Amino acid sequence: MSQIDTIQEIAEKAKKASFRLANIDTITKNQILHKISQKITQNKDKIAEENQLDVNLAEKMVAEGILSKPLLNRLILTNDKIDQLNVYLENVADLDDPVGKKQFAVKLAEGFELERISCPIGVVAIIFESRPEVVIQVTALSLKSGNAVILKGGSEAKHSNRILFQLITQVLEKYDLADAVGLIETREDVAGLFGQDKAIDLIIPRGSNEFVKFIQENTKIPVLGHSSGICHLYLDRECDFQKAIPVVLDSKLDYPSACNALENLLIHQDIASKILPDILKGLTDANVKLLGCGQTISIANTHGYNLETAKEKDWKMEYTDLILSIKIVSSIDEAVDFINTYGSHHTDSIITENLQSAEQFLSRVDSACVFHNVSTRFSDGYVFGLGAEVGISTNKTHSRGPVGLDGMVIYKYLLRGNGELRASFSGKNAQPFLHTPLPLD
Amino acid sequence: MSQIDTIQEIAEKAKKASFRLANIDTITKNQILHKISQKITQNKDKIAEENQLDVNLAEKMVAEGILSKPLLNRLILTNDKIDQLNVYLENVADLDDPVGKKQFAVKLAEGFELERISCPIGVVAIIFESRPEVVIQVTALSLKSGNAVILKGGSEAKHSNRILFQLITQVLEKYDLADAVGLIETREDVAGLFGQDKAIDLIIPRGSNEFVKFIQENTKIPVLGHSSGICHLYLDRECDFQKAIPVVLDSKLDYPSACNALENLLIHQDIASKILPDILKGLTDANVKLLGCGQTISIANTHGYNLETAKEKDWKMEYTDLILSIKIVSSIDEAVDFINTYGSHHTDSIITENLQSAEQFLSRVDSACVFHNVSTRFSDGYVFGLGAEVGISTNKTHSRGPVGLDGMVIYKYLLRGNGELRASFSGKNAQPFLHTPLPLD
Repeated sequence: MSQIDTIQEIAEKAKKASFRLANIDTITKNQILHKISQKITQNKDKIAEENQLDVNLAEKMVAEGILSKPLLNRLILTNDKIDQLNVYLENVADLDDPVGKKQFAVKLAEGFELERISCPIGVVAIIFESRPEVVIQVTALSLKSGNAVILKGGSEAKHSNRILFQLITQVLEKYDLADAVGLIETREDVAGLFGQDKAIDLIIPRGSNEFVKFIQENTKIPVLGHSSGICHLYLDRECDFQKAIPVVLDSKLDYPSACNALENLLIHQDIASKILPDILKGLTDANVKLLGCGQTISIANTHGYNLETAKEKDWKMEYTDLILSIKIVSSIDEAVDFINTYGSHHTDSIITENLQSAEQFLSRVDSACVFHNVSTRFSDGYVFGLGAEVGISTNKTHSRGPVGLDGMVIYKYLLRGNGELRASFSGKNAQPFLHTPLPLD
Repeated sequence: MSQIDTIQEIAEKAKKASFRLANIDTITKNQILHKISQKITQNKDKIAEENQLDVNLAEKMVAEGILSKPLLNRLILTNDKIDQLNVYLENVADLDDPVGKKQFAVKLAEGFELERISCPIGVVAIIFESRPEVVIQVTALSLKSGNAVILKGGSEAKHSNRILFQLITQVLEKYDLADAVGLIETREDVAGLFGQDKAIDLIIPRGSNEFVKFIQENTKIPVLGHSSGICHLYLDRECDFQKAIPVVLDSKLDYPSACNALENLLIHQDIASKILPDILKGLTDANVKLLGCGQTISIANTHGYNLETAKEKDWKMEYTDLILSIKIVSSIDEAVDFINTYGSHHTDSIITENLQSAEQFLSRVDSACVFHNVSTRFSDGYVFGLGAEVGISTNKTHSRGPVGLDGMVIYKYLLRGNGELRASFSGKNAQPFLHTPLPLD
């Protein structure tokens, strides 16, 4: 049997399991999560052993210069990290079940009632990088939302992923749901998923931008994700410098490799020469490499800073590094147009004391997250109070921004009647539709 | 300039206009719809003239056998039909504005509040067939939901579409929104849309199954639609024959070419020999060509009916014609599995007096619309009370089943603060997030 057949089998089995999983009640789903947690506790030594195999190999790769030190660190499952897995499972168990919510209900005629109920999407494929704890996190989110899931983790974490997957499967077997979680291991396997659009309903890639883009370009299956995070901060003519300067520094420096870190700073021309010196100093002190438009460069020059010219490609670049491009604009309109053109519709923020300008910016910037007087770094499912984050999406359909459990469900219409015929409700003596709203309980 | 450039221009201009349109208030949007209605009234003669040009050409094509008579009939804009356009515009103006709804709101800290607000998707391309009134219908739905729209109508309706488009544009020009509605005319233009994934956010095809499938396979842009409507009716062991037989006939005969018409009839083996004679008679009297499984054929034989064998491909076929395939199943489980495997996840119904079986069916069948004791013909936006129907979707993300105006919107997160920094909410002395729910007004 070829590799592709195997992936097809995994996908089709997951689909079958998804139909059963969709109808399992909240109590049972939470029980499964608790039992996975117990399994992990019982097998801490085994998990540590398997993880050590990955770590040994990774250490060799670091010594050979093939793997970076931070990647190695993310791979290590310390005792604390293993305990954290249990906390995570318990937390997801505590979250509200997103399945079975009545969203809409009307009476069409006496005893003839329609309702729209949230239900799982079906089968989700989640592709992620080296941290093995993600196996537990995404399994918890998928099971809680009633979705079967196919996991593809980083190959560096192969042994760790396998043992965690085995423990999950041991629990699921007791519920006749062993196929509800699948594990695949190679990039070839991922390519094999792309054609499984009958079985797989959604792909959630949590990895590098290039990889997300590659997936989006190679499958008909909907992809929930973001291929880049080019976030802007616009310092308005009427901004409070005491707010603006710290927010610029926080947006860029708090976690430069995050997708919600600042990439392009826009400054109104009327305040540029006044505010730039402090900003240039703060960023330079923090070793940020600065690029700028012509105007920015000449102001910077008068203060002894030499900036490189930001080229067209720079404005469209997510550096996820200590690099920032600065542009001076003549109006809020120019700022909004620039953001809508060059941004990635992820997170953009305005700093201003003028509430009208703020509201204009909030309504006109076409991004998942639009902020007023705060750092771009706040766009995050945990910060937003969504309980858990499946990922961040820059899609314009289904889910946008930080996606919580409610991004893992869709809905179905249920209509209950008593032998009603469509023909009775049309033509000359048509029975009318009542369309009386019914309570959503 | 090449053809492709022109399409790109239309798409990019629509994108620009969509940013303005997104922020136009409900009153102004309704005013635009009323003014289009007035324009139509003022230009009834002109519309009739242009329509006559299409009709003349179409009549020649009917005479030559290139076009079918029903298609010609759908093309004709009678005086009544033109009046109906105004009714339609007024009705859409009366619908609730789906934009600007607060869906979620939490206080993160004092004076630091997050909300999630519905907003338009952006630019929608709607592709439809010959009926020229669809130009007005989809324009009304798009403008009301704040979306720019690119229309592609049937080439048979070229002159009618153009005059309606011109009247719309004349109104939009007064609001600096002329580019918010675009018209394209050829299949080549449609192919040109496929690559405009930066400007176009959603494609809604309302046409033949093959065409929908072709679009889905040739673009990265999300497609809202259904490539087929293979609907099932399952007559359970405990069904009431007085309900079952009329529902079978209504599901098949009320409007055989509709996507929610019955294609596959499943009957429990314990009642098959009792109920089949009446069903076979009713369907045969209505000239329905019948296909069956082996068991169905032998029962039919004993009653003097000769059925063809339904092959694998027949169970997967949407005939949209007077053809029906009948299968005898041994249990509700087999029925559900069959529907989930062979169906198109559109509309499926069970006939039973056993409420437990009904609920099992409703929860286990993975379709957009799942019914109990009613005809499959009820899945429709108007019937469901959605006000207007954008289309019917068998997607598993964003919108499913009949899609109303709320399928034309997405949302954005707005966060308003006072200079908050992410760093203040993390680390040792982290300020905690409150996550206090706020009223949705």
